[in-house]
Amino acid sequence: MNALPPFSLSTLLQVVEVLGVVAFAFSGFIEARRKHMDMVGVFTVAFITAFGGGTLRDLLLDRRPLYWVEHQEYPIMVFVLAVVGSPFLRHLQSARSERLIVVADALGLGLFSASGASLALNFGMPTFVCVMMGVITGIFGGVLRDVICNEIPLVFRRGELYATCSFAGCWVYLWMDWMKAPEVMSLGASIAVTVVFRLVAVRFGWRLPG
Amino acid sequence: MNALPPFSLSTLLQVVEVLGVVAFAFSGFIEARRKHMDMVGVFTVAFITAFGGGTLRDLLLDRRPLYWVEHQEYPIMVFVLAVVGSPFLRHLQSARSERLIVVADALGLGLFSASGASLALNFGMPTFVCVMMGVITGIFGGVLRDVICNEIPLVFRRGELYATCSFAGCWVYLWMDWMKAPEVMSLGASIAVTVVFRLVAVRFGWRLPG
Amino acid sequence: MNALPPFSLSTLLQVVEVLGVVAFAFSGFIEARRKHMDMVGVFTVAFITAFGGGTLRDLLLDRRPLYWVEHQEYPIMVFVLAVVGSPFLRHLQSARSERLIVVADALGLGLFSASGASLALNFGMPTFVCVMMGVITGIFGGVLRDVICNEIPLVFRRGELYATCSFAGCWVYLWMDWMKAPEVMSLGASIAVTVVFRLVAVRFGWRLPG
Repeated sequence: MNALPPFSLSTLLQVVEVLGVVAFAFSGFIEARRKHMDMVGVFTVAFITAFGGGTLRDLLLDRRPLYWVEHQEYPIMVFVLAVVGSPFLRHLQSARSERLIVVADALGLGLFSASGASLALNFGMPTFVCVMMGVITGIFGGVLRDVICNEIPLVFRRGELYATCSFAGCWVYLWMDWMKAPEVMSLGASIAVTVVFRLVAVRFGWRLPG
Repeated sequence: MNALPPFSLSTLLQVVEVLGVVAFAFSGFIEARRKHMDMVGVFTVAFITAFGGGTLRDLLLDRRPLYWVEHQEYPIMVFVLAVVGSPFLRHLQSARSERLIVVADALGLGLFSASGASLALNFGMPTFVCVMMGVITGIFGGVLRDVICNEIPLVFRRGELYATCSFAGCWVYLWMDWMKAPEVMSLGASIAVTVVFRLVAVRFGWRLPG
Repeated sequence: MNALPPFSLSTLLQVVEVLGVVAFAFSGFIEARRKHMDMVGVFTVAFITAFGGGTLRDLLLDRRPLYWVEHQEYPIMVFVLAVVGSPFLRHLQSARSERLIVVADALGLGLFSASGASLALNFGMPTFVCVMMGVITGIFGGVLRDVICNEIPLVFRRGELYATCSFAGCWVYLWMDWMKAPEVMSLGASIAVTVVFRLVAVRFGWRLPG
């Protein structure tokens, strides 16, 4: 376990979070454009997708200031991207946009799951709670995006390997931390396991038994 | 009003909460199986139903650590039950499972309403706020379960006596506490009133005027 | 920026909040009656609409006690209005009730947006975060109302000028505060801009480009 000052993120975790914000915001942009939303809708969906999971995690851990409050450059970035990027997204083909969402969403899932598990561990949470926090952080932004866009959230689709990938990745993080691996390796392995597991499951149509 | 240390539950309240978690988790299991969800779906629905109301209550009261964070044995218990119990639930008949949900849900409603009102009172909240906290704690897990499973939440079904039962039970708790009844009696009477009121209303088809 | 004691509202902000609670509760009453809900449903929808935005704001800012917990007279007022007013609302004509909702909702939007931005500024949040807090506070109650009543939330309707009005009003507040205008003028101008912008947009059918 890292010794972190209680109310700040290590630089490493910050990098993971920024990448997660970008990945999830991107998946929100594309989903909102597919639903023909206007610019305000695109920004709202991207904002909620990018910050939903981390905000719920911070509320549950009682961690303040919230990370998008501490760093107003994150929401500003999402806002600028929504204003500047909206017209370009219009020309995305439907088939390509669906594939892009799957990839961006898998990246966001992996990055936020690892960051959630790591932060919970740094807050001294018990093991199983760290895993649950990782899973909640990873899936919640996407759940909100799908609810707003009137899609069945991936996590509730029958047989879909989604929360399971996050669950596996979080256990990898905790196991490597317990083996005293350096933080960068634990985070990297956890992210890789979640993302690869998810993408392979989508590619080969792996399903959970009913 | 009991003198409780501010950040821990009395043993009595803990017993009430464990029973409420089990009752609501059970209602979540059955509802998820009725919707033919897979094992991950069953766990997710049971987890959210069992811990949703208490988590919202703790967020509103700013009570930390959250009770499922303090006691990781609760989410582990729900997880083990979801993994072990899922195959058995498959063979439940539809009519029986509907009746089981009503009973489990009524028990969860009574147990969580009383615990919410009691905890709010111990946090020094004013009377009407204690009642609202009890009602919110009692109904929120079931609302999330029904939203996820694409049912109209019981509390929003026209004429259904649901929130009303919780409301009555919470007033009973506060009135008995004001009469200086011992905590065990106040909790017991409150739970009994909510559960019996709810079950009798379902049995005899009592409805609210339109 | 006003020097406020950190956990209390200035009298001015309190007035703004009470008016916002009344406006949003009223929009909730009418919407619930349009959906033929019973008395419990009417109270629940009014309560959630009136207190949803402010509660989310307080959770995000970690501001306790929540304002409806500090002032139990607010939820009691909504409760009494629901019990006493329900029978009267039954006779509202459909066309008139739709117009009333638009006006009550615009007022609530303006009042809560300004109060959210002002409170966030008093908590020392950075500028863009103050605007986001204002928008979140302004729109969240109405989003919950529409979700419960099975309407598409106004903020997610294509082309609808809704969040945009709140966004504009919040910038007016921050700009006037930065110009060292007295609080009463900043709040007044912000509320006026949001409400008038919204009502004019509805009246003349202004739309955002797609």
